[in-house]
Amino acid sequence: MKTLKVAMLGFGNAGQAFAEILLDKHETIKNTYGTDVRVTVIATGSRGCMVNPEGLDLSDALRAVREDGRFAYDHPDYWEDVYADSHCAGEPASVVLAREADYDVLLEMTPLQIFTGQPAITHLKTALERGKHAITANKGPIAWAFRELRDLAAEKGVKFYYETTVMDGTPIFNLVDETLRLCKVTEVHGILNTTTNFVLEELAKGIPYDEVMEEGRRRGFVEADPSMDIDGWDASAKLTALLNVLMGADITPMDVDREGIAEITEDDIRAALSRGNVIKLICHGKFEDAPEGGNAAERRVVATVKPVEVPKEQLLANIDGTSSVVSITTDLMGKLSIVEHNPEILQTGYGIFSDLLRLIVNL
Amino acid sequence: MKTLKVAMLGFGNAGQAFAEILLDKHETIKNTYGTDVRVTVIATGSRGCMVNPEGLDLSDALRAVREDGRFAYDHPDYWEDVYADSHCAGEPASVVLAREADYDVLLEMTPLQIFTGQPAITHLKTALERGKHAITANKGPIAWAFRELRDLAAEKGVKFYYETTVMDGTPIFNLVDETLRLCKVTEVHGILNTTTNFVLEELAKGIPYDEVMEEGRRRGFVEADPSMDIDGWDASAKLTALLNVLMGADITPMDVDREGIAEITEDDIRAALSRGNVIKLICHGKFEDAPEGGNAAERRVVATVKPVEVPKEQLLANIDGTSSVVSITTDLMGKLSIVEHNPEILQTGYGIFSDLLRLIVNL
Repeated sequence: MKTLKVAMLGFGNAGQAFAEILLDKHETIKNTYGTDVRVTVIATGSRGCMVNPEGLDLSDALRAVREDGRFAYDHPDYWEDVYADSHCAGEPASVVLAREADYDVLLEMTPLQIFTGQPAITHLKTALERGKHAITANKGPIAWAFRELRDLAAEKGVKFYYETTVMDGTPIFNLVDETLRLCKVTEVHGILNTTTNFVLEELAKGIPYDEVMEEGRRRGFVEADPSMDIDGWDASAKLTALLNVLMGADITPMDVDREGIAEITEDDIRAALSRGNVIKLICHGKFEDAPEGGNAAERRVVATVKPVEVPKEQLLANIDGTSSVVSITTDLMGKLSIVEHNPEILQTGYGIFSDLLRLIVNL
Repeated sequence: MKTLKVAMLGFGNAGQAFAEILLDKHETIKNTYGTDVRVTVIATGSRGCMVNPEGLDLSDALRAVREDGRFAYDHPDYWEDVYADSHCAGEPASVVLAREADYDVLLEMTPLQIFTGQPAITHLKTALERGKHAITANKGPIAWAFRELRDLAAEKGVKFYYETTVMDGTPIFNLVDETLRLCKVTEVHGILNTTTNFVLEELAKGIPYDEVMEEGRRRGFVEADPSMDIDGWDASAKLTALLNVLMGADITPMDVDREGIAEITEDDIRAALSRGNVIKLICHGKFEDAPEGGNAAERRVVATVKPVEVPKEQLLANIDGTSSVVSITTDLMGKLSIVEHNPEILQTGYGIFSDLLRLIVNL
């Protein structure tokens, strides 16, 4: 029986969903893969940190954050940031733990900083530099520093997975890696942002904008400040991640030709409907046309996120509610689409879990 | 550099498409996976057989069947069926070669016999009994003898793959195996038969049945005798394959509650349209409701293939032309759909090729 020590940075909804799956499947993983997975670190921003090199009690950790709102200071595994007042003053506990704690694989699940990818990039680099495997559910690092992290993982001979960064646990990166071997991805289409998809759909029903946003907030998928979604930044970050990984692009969200849905009016939507179309926020990436006499292999990837009129009978027009889709066009396998239907938080937890299993299988 | 010897049983359109991909990627496979793939056997029903334990010239084989319609009797690699008049009299050459020839992996690509799965089952059993790996593009064996073949492969410690049997090279079996680990599939929906999907779509446009069939024949996806498609047998065989593999069912196409589209009239289609629906031939599998007081784990899988009215705005309603879809519902990853958009024969070739790469990676 092998032991695999896991450090969880972040213990929000996704981290808790992952922890529940891990608790449920712990024995199955032992029996199926001969691996005893132990969580040795849980770091949070405001609920304390827990560390035990022999393995934490996950049930108890879940209970603590849910019932008490934080980890208890007097718990024997409670981690005191002894560095807080010394040479590392001001460093987040998560960075200190990424550098100092005992683990084999780091799970990056801290909140997204969409314009920098930090401190998630630092967490991942720190782990990889130490020769530890890394899994990120945070799309920031894939949108801002994919190449550097990928190359660092390769140099250190460790694994680096990131399935959850786009469409939760829906296999996209793993799909291409594990089931579309030697296929070259030539184009990507997608509807990747749930909030805008919901808003456009509700507006098309004739519901006023304010009511739509109110309903979205109530149901939990419109943020207090919805501008990251409405202005297309979230979609741009996801598209960037897809294109950096699947098409070898070397872009950041700033390179995306981005237009949000803030300017879309009820009139626009009605006019589209009258033409048999619906308006969707479409993410699109393709190679730019080859320059005359230029080298086709050196073509840049062109990325756009913008509202597009889609004929009602097309697949993209029928991605409803909180569902998402990615369509990939390849040289050998033609065009495939994968749709995630109205996911719950469990599916985010599964994304991290599936990367962990992929790691176990490939160790 | 490892050598992997491949026996191809069948060299029709799919086999030729596979051969073209293999020719194109031969060096890439050597460089990427350190494996020199050599085709040592090509067996056909009416165009002769070629055998060379050192590897056949695939380009030349493609040229021969395309330009001359068959392999030349005087080619040094032409295989004379020396058993034809002896102890094995009457045995197909493919069976003899499966049993006698030098190869590491057998590719089963002979024509489907939908009510028996033979001789494909015999080919596969023969290879597996010899401790050879096996890949089938033929769905007959998965619909009629999956468990036996799976168990035989496990007993002999060899690989047995079958991605191409449903939706060409679209990852479905590999998707579940490689990217949805530890997920339990609880329900499957699909549109799996291209012919009926095309026919229903054209009928809905008001084109008379005879014209639709004529057009389908011209475009090559309506068979001379279309009853296997129209009566739902092809869809039933594919659904059986899906359920046997993904849900552990132990059924044959005879167990499917099957209803074709022969009875669907233009009036039915118009009436559906007036309700905002379209008629699709839907494949569906689920666990039967648990008997009261019974053991939920022992629930049978119930399979149906029948025309169903689908609301126009649903994904299934918008699977057009020769496209296909499988939706799978799982315990941990919710509901996912994968769509193959209007495939060509290249995608069938890629299915076999992707199984071959999966084998190489897992050897």
